[in-house]
Amino acid sequence: MAETDQALPPSDQLAAMNLTDTVEKHAFSDRVLIRSIVGRPDGGAGLAGQRVRAGGWVKTGREQGKGTFAFLELNDGSCPANLQVIVDAGLAVLSKLVATGTCVVVDGILKVPPEGTRQKIELRVEKVVSVGEVDPAKYPIPKTKLTLEFLRDHLHLRARTNTIAAIARIRNALAFATHSFFQEHNFLYVHTPILTTSDCEGAGEMFQVTTLISESEKLEKELIKNPPPSEVDIEAARQVVSERGEAVKQLKAAKASKSEITASVAELNKAKENLSKLEERSKLKSGIPKKDGKIDYTQDFFARQAFLTVSGQLQVETYACAVSNVYTFGPTFRAEHSHTSRHLAEFWMVEPEIAFADLQDDMNCAEAYVKYMCNWLLDKCLDDMQFMAKSYDKGCIDRLRMVASIPFVRISYTEAVELLEEAVKGGKKFENEVKWGIDLASEHERYLTEVKFQKPVIVYNYPKGIKAFYMRLNDDLKTVAAMDVLVPKVGELIGGSQREERYEVIRERYNFGGGVAS
Amino acid sequence: MAETDQALPPSDQLAAMNLTDTVEKHAFSDRVLIRSIVGRPDGGAGLAGQRVRAGGWVKTGREQGKGTFAFLELNDGSCPANLQVIVDAGLAVLSKLVATGTCVVVDGILKVPPEGTRQKIELRVEKVVSVGEVDPAKYPIPKTKLTLEFLRDHLHLRARTNTIAAIARIRNALAFATHSFFQEHNFLYVHTPILTTSDCEGAGEMFQVTTLISESEKLEKELIKNPPPSEVDIEAARQVVSERGEAVKQLKAAKASKSEITASVAELNKAKENLSKLEERSKLKSGIPKKDGKIDYTQDFFARQAFLTVSGQLQVETYACAVSNVYTFGPTFRAEHSHTSRHLAEFWMVEPEIAFADLQDDMNCAEAYVKYMCNWLLDKCLDDMQFMAKSYDKGCIDRLRMVASIPFVRISYTEAVELLEEAVKGGKKFENEVKWGIDLASEHERYLTEVKFQKPVIVYNYPKGIKAFYMRLNDDLKTVAAMDVLVPKVGELIGGSQREERYEVIRERYNFGGGVAS
Repeated sequence: MAETDQALPPSDQLAAMNLTDTVEKHAFSDRVLIRSIVGRPDGGAGLAGQRVRAGGWVKTGREQGKGTFAFLELNDGSCPANLQVIVDAGLAVLSKLVATGTCVVVDGILKVPPEGTRQKIELRVEKVVSVGEVDPAKYPIPKTKLTLEFLRDHLHLRARTNTIAAIARIRNALAFATHSFFQEHNFLYVHTPILTTSDCEGAGEMFQVTTLISESEKLEKELIKNPPPSEVDIEAARQVVSERGEAVKQLKAAKASKSEITASVAELNKAKENLSKLEERSKLKSGIPKKDGKIDYTQDFFARQAFLTVSGQLQVETYACAVSNVYTFGPTFRAEHSHTSRHLAEFWMVEPEIAFADLQDDMNCAEAYVKYMCNWLLDKCLDDMQFMAKSYDKGCIDRLRMVASIPFVRISYTEAVELLEEAVKGGKKFENEVKWGIDLASEHERYLTEVKFQKPVIVYNYPKGIKAFYMRLNDDLKTVAAMDVLVPKVGELIGGSQREERYEVIRERYNFGGGVAS
Repeated sequence: MAETDQALPPSDQLAAMNLTDTVEKHAFSDRVLIRSIVGRPDGGAGLAGQRVRAGGWVKTGREQGKGTFAFLELNDGSCPANLQVIVDAGLAVLSKLVATGTCVVVDGILKVPPEGTRQKIELRVEKVVSVGEVDPAKYPIPKTKLTLEFLRDHLHLRARTNTIAAIARIRNALAFATHSFFQEHNFLYVHTPILTTSDCEGAGEMFQVTTLISESEKLEKELIKNPPPSEVDIEAARQVVSERGEAVKQLKAAKASKSEITASVAELNKAKENLSKLEERSKLKSGIPKKDGKIDYTQDFFARQAFLTVSGQLQVETYACAVSNVYTFGPTFRAEHSHTSRHLAEFWMVEPEIAFADLQDDMNCAEAYVKYMCNWLLDKCLDDMQFMAKSYDKGCIDRLRMVASIPFVRISYTEAVELLEEAVKGGKKFENEVKWGIDLASEHERYLTEVKFQKPVIVYNYPKGIKAFYMRLNDDLKTVAAMDVLVPKVGELIGGSQREERYEVIRERYNFGGGVAS
């Protein structure tokens, strides 16, 4: 089809080449992904002569040559790079194509642009298939740089920006890398429940899940439309019952016919039924249902108080004790009123559990996981990371390479405190006092990773007083087999522990620590 | 190390062999997975002579040879098959090992058992490393067959059963297959929000997420401990303010010293502050906060009414319109009071969106996805599917093979209704009337997939009246570009549509249909 097809080797030889000179359309669309053109090592040059359909959104556009043609930078989100598209005036009203945000689908032929241009390939359009116009006066995402805060007010369009699109691709890559890592190591992915009745961290931090309020609002509306019976209504109904009862009595006394009595009894029963319905309805009260002064959760959806999970650990541990290697990866929720970049009401968390493993295995797993993530990003998202390096964090790629390649430092908590104390002696000032027993503050962690070692540090064997009751008590009876992975510029990235397997020990620690279990 | 090591080829040759004669320990544990022994095509026979550590839970155990040794069937959840383990009486108290559910870790040597036994390999124990005992009188999951209903009361142990462990492995496989399918086809995984303020399907079916109840309960407790001030308290405080005001006035009138006046004003301000605090506290009321007779959601966590999502479609569509191919895979929630096997309060759903695609592309994607899932199960979970075929559904493997290989039938809704009408004419009885315009009932779908075609059927172009307003109106103005994938023995497995892209059309459909958008 394409002009240069005749110059290509036969297709059986093509298949064996690393870089083929054909571009495949997407499996579920008649267009090609822009990444499959400009994301090639040759920038797409080897595809010159191919006819393709491309679709996407205009990043920037301009009319040139006194309006005889237009340049469009087209992006479809498959990669950060755009495809340069050239449309002649005869094919469309150019002014309707050039506005930022315009959606276009075009058929064209790939050509190597004149020398001296940045692009390795461009698309000369032969047909404009479809245009989704944009009114530049109303489009809220112009090509100028926008703050992330501004974008919070334009959620439905923010994925059109370079930054949010790059974050979407990076997050996608890390999510799949997470699954790939655990699947390669024979962990089973377990969907632990999001709705839970166990309150593992104290109700204050949990969101409650309920239908009580909506049910009570529904009832309130219903009672306004259809008011409950008054005492007078009920008294009247009671009167009817008593009259009909009297009638039955009289008929029986008068030895009336069986059919007369049956009819009368039926009347009585109808009156009784009506009365009991009215009495039932008169008890209906709007507002949250209460019993003995407390909210009556037996009337809630699950017949008890329910919350959003703060962790799947408890549930996934039950799977670890049956199928040995497991992990969760799902949303968790905290109703904390803190507005820091490290506190979110909703976030996704990965929680692996390994049976027949100790703290060393746990640290090995954590380190291998972090390295795998970094290598995956360097391998699959280098273009997006380059954008991040350019726009937000100059050193991020070097840091990824460092974390991916350097063995993590592993020091005990006691050693970490000694190093901090040495630093203090040497004149280093910390806001938080350094002494054995403290929870390491952010400034302490940063000193260890950014000043002392300049690489990731795993601190292990923490004082039992600052860690959870289920972590395994060490032989010194003072520390537990817990570990935190600390990373330069990030701080604590992963926390983990060897679980206490000795029943007597955990029972005592639980009672002493006032822990809460489901 | 192992006895037969000298007979093995050099390690560089071993690496090139498809089936090596060494078994690797798990990366994050010093044991090997039982699957890596008994899951091999040779059932593990080729590993004879190797020393390994194994860990798991006893499925069945029995003492033999007058108590001189014990047989244990050990399972670690890595596969449905058990490893047969033989322990001599000299190594452990055998009676503590044989109970179902006992957790054991053992070191031993793999041996080919005597001829005539079912196993291809067994583990002769040299050392019992660890035992987690079970009291058979108290262990609720004996080796007899248990109903799924019974297991609902023993959630923390149910993954120890063959059925739930198999389901866990199958669900894990399908989840990873889902990610693999979409990643291979260049879709980005998007985590759409679980907490939402948009009520897309009517509040009745949604769970409300709130901190109002817990906050009001907290306040209620606090008010009991520390009652709000009475009118008398407030009047007394008001009196103090008035007295101190008077004192200031008098000092000023008496031209007292500046420091005297300043001190007096300070006293007055203190009294005023106390009064305003008391007044503020006297307004505190327990119960859900209300304003103008309605619940005051400005006091809720997000300062507005919030719910659990019923679908991520709305949010993921905004990503599709920026990065073109996306999918969600997360939990969704419905507060429906229906107790059928097809209604769950919490379930995980996959929602792909493809930009620049039409209904054909959508159907191609759905069919390719279903086939991919079936092939994945046949490829990676055949042993678990064989268990399912044996225990629950004889035909399930044949059905997977059929769905994976046969092209799905594709018929329009109108054709489907004609086929059903023909069947009625031929004497087939349906409970629900068949005529153009009805929503196909389960019995109609089953007739099409199980009787008429005996294979999966995609029905497309449904009447607009029974489908959502955002589905693309066809040129006949009567149907929309929607499709449902129907599968024998399952019914509707996937629903999808081409979205309406014409603003005027969707606006009219939205107004007419009374749809709700965020």
